[in-house]
Amino acid sequence: MLEARVKQAAVLKKLLDAIKELVTDGNLDCTDEGIALQAMDNSHVALVSLKLVAEQFESYRCDRNMPLGVNLTSLTKILKCAKDQDVVTLKAPDDADSLGLVFESPKEDRVGEYEMKLMDIDQEHLGIPDTQYDATITMSSSEFQRICRDLAALGESVKIEASKEGVRFSSEGEVGNGSVLLKQSAGTDRSGGSSSKKAVKRDPDEEDEEEIEEDEKPEIDDEEEDEQDDEDRSKKRKSNGKSKTAKKAKKDESTSEDIGVSIILEKQVSLTFSLKYLTNFAKSAPLAREVSLHMSNDVPLLVQFDFEQGTLQFFLAPKVGLSSLRDTDI
Amino acid sequence: MLEARVKQAAVLKKLLDAIKELVTDGNLDCTDEGIALQAMDNSHVALVSLKLVAEQFESYRCDRNMPLGVNLTSLTKILKCAKDQDVVTLKAPDDADSLGLVFESPKEDRVGEYEMKLMDIDQEHLGIPDTQYDATITMSSSEFQRICRDLAALGESVKIEASKEGVRFSSEGEVGNGSVLLKQSAGTDRSGGSSSKKAVKRDPDEEDEEEIEEDEKPEIDDEEEDEQDDEDRSKKRKSNGKSKTAKKAKKDESTSEDIGVSIILEKQVSLTFSLKYLTNFAKSAPLAREVSLHMSNDVPLLVQFDFEQGTLQFFLAPKVGLSSLRDTDI
Amino acid sequence: MLEARVKQAAVLKKLLDAIKELVTDGNLDCTDEGIALQAMDNSHVALVSLKLVAEQFESYRCDRNMPLGVNLTSLTKILKCAKDQDVVTLKAPDDADSLGLVFESPKEDRVGEYEMKLMDIDQEHLGIPDTQYDATITMSSSEFQRICRDLAALGESVKIEASKEGVRFSSEGEVGNGSVLLKQSAGTDRSGGSSSKKAVKRDPDEEDEEEIEEDEKPEIDDEEEDEQDDEDRSKKRKSNGKSKTAKKAKKDESTSEDIGVSIILEKQVSLTFSLKYLTNFAKSAPLAREVSLHMSNDVPLLVQFDFEQGTLQFFLAPKVGLSSLRDTDI
Repeated sequence: MLEARVKQAAVLKKLLDAIKELVTDGNLDCTDEGIALQAMDNSHVALVSLKLVAEQFESYRCDRNMPLGVNLTSLTKILKCAKDQDVVTLKAPDDADSLGLVFESPKEDRVGEYEMKLMDIDQEHLGIPDTQYDATITMSSSEFQRICRDLAALGESVKIEASKEGVRFSSEGEVGNGSVLLKQSAGTDRSGGSSSKKAVKRDPDEEDEEEIEEDEKPEIDDEEEDEQDDEDRSKKRKSNGKSKTAKKAKKDESTSEDIGVSIILEKQVSLTFSLKYLTNFAKSAPLAREVSLHMSNDVPLLVQFDFEQGTLQFFLAPKVGLSSLRDTDI
Repeated sequence: MLEARVKQAAVLKKLLDAIKELVTDGNLDCTDEGIALQAMDNSHVALVSLKLVAEQFESYRCDRNMPLGVNLTSLTKILKCAKDQDVVTLKAPDDADSLGLVFESPKEDRVGEYEMKLMDIDQEHLGIPDTQYDATITMSSSEFQRICRDLAALGESVKIEASKEGVRFSSEGEVGNGSVLLKQSAGTDRSGGSSSKKAVKRDPDEEDEEEIEEDEKPEIDDEEEDEQDDEDRSKKRKSNGKSKTAKKAKKDESTSEDIGVSIILEKQVSLTFSLKYLTNFAKSAPLAREVSLHMSNDVPLLVQFDFEQGTLQFFLAPKVGLSSLRDTDI
Repeated sequence: MLEARVKQAAVLKKLLDAIKELVTDGNLDCTDEGIALQAMDNSHVALVSLKLVAEQFESYRCDRNMPLGVNLTSLTKILKCAKDQDVVTLKAPDDADSLGLVFESPKEDRVGEYEMKLMDIDQEHLGIPDTQYDATITMSSSEFQRICRDLAALGESVKIEASKEGVRFSSEGEVGNGSVLLKQSAGTDRSGGSSSKKAVKRDPDEEDEEEIEEDEKPEIDDEEEDEQDDEDRSKKRKSNGKSKTAKKAKKDESTSEDIGVSIILEKQVSLTFSLKYLTNFAKSAPLAREVSLHMSNDVPLLVQFDFEQGTLQFFLAPKVGLSSLRDTDI
C-alpha cells in the first residue's frame, strides 16, 4: 500500500509539465525509499530519470515495492484539477488498478478526490552507471532555457564548449550563425592551469572606463580593496591562488537570474547535441533555479535539476559528426 | 424612444462575453422597467434570461415598449470599441432600424459614436414560473468556473449533490473519475436536522495538530475563547443553536475567492447536467463574485448571477439516465 | 567599415517588430550620418522610411557608404536572441557578405555573437519631397493603435477628418458604422478663426453637474478659480487669447496615454485610407508615446514616430472615391 503526501500540488504539476512531452507512459516505481520514474523518451534517444525521495514528502508510506503504470497525459489532466497550493495525497492499495489522488485546499474547505486508471507497462529498468564527468557546469536554469530557445531559432544543433573562460553555446543554420558565451563567475573556478581569456568588459554606465586585463592585474592588498569597493568584497574572493579569473564584481542587485556560472573542469570539453532535446529538457526550469550540465567527451550529457523533493535527470548522447570530431581532439 | 446611460462599458462587455456563445440573435425588450433579453441557446437546450433594471442605469428613459432585435456578435464587435471605463449611452428612436451607441471617455476628450443595424426577430416570450427550489447553493463564481473547467477535462456530465455536508460535483470519463466537495462555510447552514460529516482538517502548517471534531466539542465560554484565538472569534459565531457545523476558523486572509459556500436545503438533491452548458454559463463569472445554483429534482437547474445592474439567469434541464436515477431517491 | 553601438537591444527589437510585416527585404544604407532604410511595402502601396542618426548611437563609425542588404525576418530572429537590456554592436567590414551582431549583457557576464548573411538588393532610393501639410495631428500612439484596431472590426477604410474641433476617425461596414472623435486638448490649438463645437461633458462622478458651455463662459478671475479647484489650475491655462477651447480640466492622474491631441491646421482636411495599412503602421506604437499624422488633400498621408534614436515614417496614398470626394470640397 502506498500513501504519499505532497505539500504543494505545484511541484507535481511542474514535474509533469517538464516530462510529459518527452514521455507518454511510464512506471512510477514506489519503494520505501521514494518514488522513481525512468523512461526513454518517445523516440528512444533521451533518457529521463526522476527520483522523489521518501524523506521529502509531508508523509510517506510504502509497504511493498510496486510499479504504478501511468499515462502521463492523463496524470497531467488530473493534476490540473489541483490548485497550486493544494496538499496532494497519492494513494494506492497493493495490486491497485487505479491511483487515487486527493487534493485538499489549505483552508480545508475544498476536497477533490480523483481516481486514475493504471496500466501494465513492461519496462526494463536501466542501470545508470556513476560517471566521473570531465566538466560540470552549474548555471541559471532560466538562462539555460533562454539559450536553447534562442539558438533553436538558428539551427538544429548546439555545440557546448566548456573551458576556464566559461561555457560557450554555438549553433549555425541558414540565416547565419551565433554563439553565446557565459563567463564563469568570480571565485568559482576550481580547476588548475592557466587560461587564455578574451575580456569583453565595457560597462555601458561608465563610458570611459579603462580596459583592464584582469589576468595581468597584480594581486591587490585587501585593505586597499576595502576602501575602493567595500560591498563587493565578498564576491571578489578567489577560490585558489593559481586562478586569476576574478572579474569585475557585479554592481546590479541580485535577481532571480543572478545565479552566475560555475565550472568544474578536469579537461576541456566540446560536444554537440540536438537542440530539440535540450529545449525539451530546459522546460524543467520552473522546477529549480539552477541546472547542472555534466559532460565528458563521447559520453552522454547529463542535465540535472535538483529540487526540494528530489532530482530530475536527462541523458542525451552527443551528435557524432564532422563538427564534433573537429573539436574533441583537445 | 430609448435613451439609457450605463456608467461603465465594462459591465456590458462582460455581459456580452457571457452570453454571446450561447445566443446569436435576440430581442432587447425595452420597457419603462428596464431592458430584458430572453432567448433559448442555439441548440434549444438552455434558456438565457437577462434583466437590466431601469433604476440601476445612470439615466434611463423608455417612452414606449420596443423590442430591439440585435445580433450579439455584431453588438460584441461594437462594444469592443469602448474602453472599459467609458460611459455608454444606448439610443433608439421609436421604430428604429438601428441602435445608436455613444462611448464617452471619463475625461470627455474622446467620443465614439456607433450605429448598429437592427433586425426583426420573431420571438415568443416564455413565462418562467416562480419555482420553490429544494436546494440553493451560493458560492464563489470563479470557484464554480474552475470546477466546471476541471471536470470537463474528465467527462461530459457532472453530478451535483447538495447535502448538509456541502456540495459535491462529480464526473467520470475514460481517464478516471473525480469529484470536488465544497464544504459549507461555518454559520451558513439554515436547515434543520443532524448531519453526518467527514472532517478533513489537517493544517499543513501545523503538523502535529490534534484532530478536533467540532461537532462534539462543548460550547466554549466567550472569555476563554478570547484568550485562545481572539482574532478568529467573529468568524466562529454560529447561525443557530441546532446547527453545529462550525468548522475550524480560517486563518488565511480574505481573498477575492474567499466567499465560502452557503446551502439552503429543504431536501437533499442530486442531479446530473451537461458540463458543456455549465462551462458556458460559468463564463459569466467576471460579472459577479457569487453565483447561486437553484435545484429541485426533475426541474431545470437555475444558475443565477446577480450584479449591480441586474440579473443574469441560465436554465438547464437535468440529464435523465441511470446515473441520475440512482441518486434521486433520497 | 561599420561599427555602431546601440545601448539597448529593445529599441532595435521594437523597430523590427514595427516594420517586419510591411517589408521583407531592404538595404540598411550606412553612411557617416547614420543608418537609413527605405522600402516600399510588399504590395507596393506604402512607403517605409527609417532613419537612425549617428549622434544617437552609443558610438558610431562608418568610413564608407555601404548598403547592407538584409532580410528583415532573419534579422528579427537574431535580435530575438538579445535580451532587452543588452548592448548591441553592429559590425561590418567593407564589402561584407555578412553582418556581425554582438549582444552584451549589462553585467558583461554574457556575450552573444551572431553573424547574419547579407544579400544583394537592387533598390532605387526614392527622393521624398519636403511637403507642407495642411493638417498635422499629434496624439498618443497607443490611442492611434486602439482606434485603428477598433474601426478595422467595422470596415476596411477609415476617413480621417481634422478640424478645430478635433480629429474624427470614421468607418462603416456591414455591421453598422462608427466614428471616434478626439477633441483637441486645451491650449494646443494654434490656428485662428472661430470654431463650432459640440460639448459632451457629463462627469460620471458628479451626477447633477450643470452643463456649462465653456466657449460662452466668461473669463474667470484667478483667485476665484484657486478656491474652487486649486490643484487643477496649471492645466487650465490657455495658450492664447483668441482660442477659447479650454475644456474642463482633467481630474485623472497622468497616465501613459494621457498625452492629449494637438492639431495644427491650415485648412480642414478629410481623407480616406485603408485600415489594413494604418493598423500595420500603428504597430510602431511601442517605439514612441506620440505619433503625428500629416495630411493634405490629394497627397499621401505621413505617419511619423519620433524616438530617441531617430525617426520612422510611413507614407500612404489616400483612397479616391465617392466617400473622399464628398468631403474634400471644404
